[in-house]
Parts: sequence; C-alpha cells; structure tokens
Amino acid sequence: MSENKIGREIPDYIENIGELKPYESPFAYQPTTRKFGRKISKTVPGQSKLLNSIEEAIIRTGLKDGMTISFHHHFRTGDYVVNMVMDAIAKLGIKNLTVAASSLNDVHAPLIGHIKNGVVTKIETSGLRGPLAYEVSKGLLDTPVIIRSHGGRARAIESGELKIDVAFLGVSCTDIYGNANGYNGKSICGSLGYAKMDAQYADQVVLITDTLVDYPNVPASILQSDVDYIVKVDAIGNPEGISSGAIRLTKNPRELLIAKYAAKVIEASGYLKPGFSMQCGSGGASLAVIRYIKEKMIEDNIKASFFLGGITGSSVELLNEGLTKKLLDVQDFDLIAAKSIGENPNHFEIDASYYANPHNKGCAANLLDVVILSALEVDTDFNVNVMT
Amino acid sequence: MSENKIGREIPDYIENIGELKPYESPFAYQPTTRKFGRKISKTVPGQSKLLNSIEEAIIRTGLKDGMTISFHHHFRTGDYVVNMVMDAIAKLGIKNLTVAASSLNDVHAPLIGHIKNGVVTKIETSGLRGPLAYEVSKGLLDTPVIIRSHGGRARAIESGELKIDVAFLGVSCTDIYGNANGYNGKSICGSLGYAKMDAQYADQVVLITDTLVDYPNVPASILQSDVDYIVKVDAIGNPEGISSGAIRLTKNPRELLIAKYAAKVIEASGYLKPGFSMQCGSGGASLAVIRYIKEKMIEDNIKASFFLGGITGSSVELLNEGLTKKLLDVQDFDLIAAKSIGENPNHFEIDASYYANPHNKGCAANLLDVVILSALEVDTDFNVNVMT
Repeated sequence: MSENKIGREIPDYIENIGELKPYESPFAYQPTTRKFGRKISKTVPGQSKLLNSIEEAIIRTGLKDGMTISFHHHFRTGDYVVNMVMDAIAKLGIKNLTVAASSLNDVHAPLIGHIKNGVVTKIETSGLRGPLAYEVSKGLLDTPVIIRSHGGRARAIESGELKIDVAFLGVSCTDIYGNANGYNGKSICGSLGYAKMDAQYADQVVLITDTLVDYPNVPASILQSDVDYIVKVDAIGNPEGISSGAIRLTKNPRELLIAKYAAKVIEASGYLKPGFSMQCGSGGASLAVIRYIKEKMIEDNIKASFFLGGITGSSVELLNEGLTKKLLDVQDFDLIAAKSIGENPNHFEIDASYYANPHNKGCAANLLDVVILSALEVDTDFNVNVMT
Repeated sequence: MSENKIGREIPDYIENIGELKPYESPFAYQPTTRKFGRKISKTVPGQSKLLNSIEEAIIRTGLKDGMTISFHHHFRTGDYVVNMVMDAIAKLGIKNLTVAASSLNDVHAPLIGHIKNGVVTKIETSGLRGPLAYEVSKGLLDTPVIIRSHGGRARAIESGELKIDVAFLGVSCTDIYGNANGYNGKSICGSLGYAKMDAQYADQVVLITDTLVDYPNVPASILQSDVDYIVKVDAIGNPEGISSGAIRLTKNPRELLIAKYAAKVIEASGYLKPGFSMQCGSGGASLAVIRYIKEKMIEDNIKASFFLGGITGSSVELLNEGLTKKLLDVQDFDLIAAKSIGENPNHFEIDASYYANPHNKGCAANLLDVVILSALEVDTDFNVNVMT
C-alpha cells in the first residue's frame, strides 16, 4: 500500500490491472515512453470494406477471448450500438472481453447479463450510470472498473496503457471507404471527439451506420485511412437520447440558484473580460451558468475567445450572436449543437486528446480561464468527488 | 545482389542505409510491424511555446549530431524555411544530419555548402531538382539519396523506417499554441498535406511563421497538440514560388498536343462517365489535360466525384462550376487553389497517408479511375522513369 496526495491508502498492485501509481499532483507524472502504434495493415484497390452484418464484422476482425473492444458514448442514452454488438459477440461465444467505452449509462443495462455469462470480465470507462453501475457497485465484477477522465482516457490510449483490439464505432453517416461524421444522416450525435481516439489507435476499426452516402464523404471526422470495415444497420441510435442522461436545460429552482451564484463568482473573479475562455460540464446547474453569464457579457460588451468541451445549444447561441469567436467541441449535449458542428466552421470538432490529454504537446484545457463542473461532494479542502 | 521485378540488380545492403528489399509488385510488400510512436511529451498550463529565434528553437529541441530533421515543400521554389534553418544549424556547429524533406528544388542550392561542410551527410526526399540535384548526381554525398514517392514517404514515417527527430515546418499562420494552416496569413501555400505527416510523427515539432493570429486558430491543418515550439520570422516564403518549379499553365504546343491526345485516350477508355475520379500530376502537359477533359464533361453532362492530389486553379474551377463534387487536396500547385482550400469545405485537405500510403487502411489513390502523371522515359513494357 502507498498513500496518495490526500493520505488515502492505494494498493500497489491489483490483479488483472497491474501496478498502480498513487496520485501526487496535477502535473507530477512525467511521461517517459513513446506513443502507442497500432498494427499496420493495408487495404488494396478493389478490396471492399462493406460487410453484411455486425456478426460478419466480428468474425472478420478475428475477435477472440481476452481481447479489448471499445465504444463511444456520443449517443448517450440514445445509443443502440453497444447492445447490438455485445449481443452478436455473445452469440458467437466469445468470452472474457474488456469493454473500454468512453462512457456507459442506463441503456447499457444488458451488459449485466453479458458480465454474468462471462462474455465481459472487465470494464474501463469514464462514466458509469444506471443499473449497470448499481450492479457493479454491488460487486458484479471480480476486477475493479478502471475509471478515467475523458482526457485521461485519451492519454491512456495514446500511451498504450489502454490497448484496443477492435473499436466498434457508431457514425451517423459514412461512405463505403469510411469517411464518416456524426452530424449528417438520420441518427445524428454531432461531434465524434471521443471516437476519434479509438479510430486512430485501435488495431481494427469497424464503423456501424444507418446512413451510407456517396464517396468521398468529406469533410469527415473519422477518415477512411483509419477504417477497416463498415456495417449498415437499420438504426444506430435515437438522437433524442443525447440530451437526456446528464444533460437537460434545468427548471429546478435549486439548480438555477446554484447557477446564479456561480455566475456571480465568475464575475467577481476578474476572469470575465474580453477574450476569456470557458467550459461548462454536464449537469443542469452547470449548463445554466451560461445563461446568466451571457446577460453580463451583453451588458459589458465582453466577447469570449472560445467555449470548450461538451457543447450545448446555449454555447451555439453565443457563437451565432458573436459572443464567442470559436467553439472547441469534443461532444454535443443536444441536437442544436449536434447540427451546428456540421454547418459552422467556427464550431470546431476536436478529439479527446486535443481537449484534455495532459500528456500531449498542449491540450485546450491548459488555456481555460473558467470551468464550471458538476460535483457530487466537495470537502472544505476542495477535494472533489464526482463518482458516487 | 538480388534482382528486382524488371531484372535489375539491387544491392542487399547499403552502408548507412541498411538492408534493401527488391521491388516485386505494387502490393506484394506485406506490413508486419506496428505504427511508429513518437516520444510522449507534455506542455503544462502557463508554459509558452513561442521562442525568439530559430536558433533558440534548435537549442531548445536539443538537436545534436547525427539526428534527422525534416521539412515540407509546400512553398516549392518560394521556400525560405529550409535555408534559414540550415544556416542557423550550421552556425551552431551541429554536424552529420539527415535532411528528410518532402521535396527539394532549385532554391535549396545552399544545401550544397552544408553538405561540403559536413552539416548534412544524408538526404531523404521525394523530389530533388536544380543545382543540388546536379551536384548529388556527380557524387556529392557518400550515402545515396533515398527517394520515395509522396505516399511512400508517408508509409516510411508511419512505420518508423523514417524517424524524424525534429520537424521544422513553415506555416502561413498559427496561434501561440500551434493551431496552424497554410491558407491564411501573408505567405500562403494552401494545403499542408505533406507537413501533416511530420507534425504527427516527429519527436519534436517547430512551427515557423510570419503571421501570428489570435487563439484558437481553428479550423487548423496542424493542431496544437502536435506542436512544441513556434518561431515568428519576417517571411517564411514567397507565395509566387508555388506555381513555378514543375507547375505552370503551359503554352508549349508540344505539351498541349500531348494533353489533347491524353484526353482522347481517357474518353476512349470508358472511364469518363458520371462519378469518375481523376488525378493530374505536376507538369504542363499533365495539368493541361483537365482543360480538354472539361470540354467533354460539359458536352456530355458528366460530373466527377473527386479530383485528387496536387490541386490547381483548373480543378478549383471544376469544383466551383459543379463539375466535381469534391477536391481531395494534398498540395496546391497555384495560388487560386491555395486560397480555395481555406474557403470551400468541399475542397478538403488530406495528409500524404490518406492520399497515397499503400500501408494504411485504404488511401484515396486506391479509388482513382484516371491518373495523368508526367514521365521522363517510358519503355515499351510501360516501365516508367520519372527520376533522370
């Protein structure tokens, strides 16, 4: 056992996970390795990437017991992809998989069954909500879940700490060679910022879509040079789901009061001046802050340089009204934002590494003036719990 | 010695280069390794990337004897960057470097002096023109120059066959954190398609610009998460230079006749039908083909799906007139194209791997119907010499 920065005992080693390093401080950890490189493969002229079913894609990738598969959560509670793929994998009798998702929520409750049947034995994720979270908390898995921040997941993927054998990525449209985005097609989710990491680093990449379009489908968020296989299904998700889950425009008077106070703190901080930058995390109170800040910005003629992170219709309004120069968008929290990213070049799609990876040559979070994030518990030393 | 496909004897090994594999056929070579990963580094909040001089950047990167440095050639004969950087390196007394450029031309004649002084002892490039080429042909270097196609250079960088210690990349504008492009600023070159490879894989990346703009400078061709240092100089290049060199709109009657015949061959081939795709390489005759093809396209109401590769004003005209749906642009051959790429989302910037790397998950060249490339010699078995 070692002690971390706040004196909590941390095991030195966990079976099936490996050695642990106790947390010291935000920038204490000095990277010493090289970036992970996925297996080089080639696709020759005439070779088709289009397959008939998810089952065929699983077989073609050679997925087998013990491997790691990954998913993104841009559809949030509207996601159909995880359950479709896991059902197909279970039918093929593959066991002992690690599921490395950028987040998991209520709709992924069927994973409980796959864990009980031994199809899934390990989870690495950023968020974990709903019945699955409840069962995991009660001890469903022998190996503890690895929870990383979104930027931390990008760091782990780039360093090879999280090695993905096959990424199954839902995209709202793609051409037959894999140029894909999340803002055109019948089931849109907007930014594919988290999925862009998996597309670049997974050994094999399978796109799942319900909308095939003409080649070349550019500009694209995921590029053909990163895609092995493409499967067309009836529907990959319900776009309405992206603004449920953690994200809604709150009418709760307590949340609105918190937001109002937060806005006052920001005003008093001295950071609210021309060219400032800001991020608002998910959660009703957090997102409501933008509304209060906006009044002050108009009043004092203050224009921001950028809003970062999860983007909502409120941030899009700021962009369209000239109150912020740019949006740096790693995920969209509602359909207004999901549409805007495909229409306005100043609404720019970034990957999770650009967003918040502490171990690249400089992430956008480094340049933030103000961040509003939801917390479940804060102690009087400002240690924050966002997990339980 | 081994024999290659056309019976030419190829040495098995060359001093300072290593083992060689004789060429067999376009897709015989099966990759077996993982992608190369550059050293992971970090930039913490408050750390500035902006340096005062190229000399300071060289010192900060720790460049030393025997390393490999790289450059792009998007400014073609208008490039100032290679000579500025090499002069600064020579003054610092660093020796025995490998220069890995995407191409070298007439304006890089000063490299002859740096080779004679031992600053540069090896060259890897795609093109090699002018006095430098002449001197190299006469035996200036002890180690043979490695010449790769543009797609082959991307393959070599991704596989780690070509490891770049420090990339010095001219960009027409960047913000203070390294979000950069080639189409805004005072010295534009358009696409940075070749430079995008170096930015992603070099251990350290130095941007050299004459136009610093507000953060965040997005959309960007090179991203902040790939950039270590930024140096502002008076001028990085002369944009007029990008349409000299190999590229001009020919008035030469022989070239026009070749182009006319080539257009007739394409018509007769059956490939000139709705949705066709095409690439025209550099060289007057090659680029003139577009003009003849265009007449036929209008006459028969044929619209292309994409034009690929080096892009000219002629291809931009096709895009703007609705005769092609997209341009996939790895480099610009004139200023009309260099401006268009920043203005029209259907004029899409691609990197050299997406363009033509045979060892990724599918490059755009795989889907080409028609290519016009200049050749210096063609034998009756259609073996082509583009080198001498």
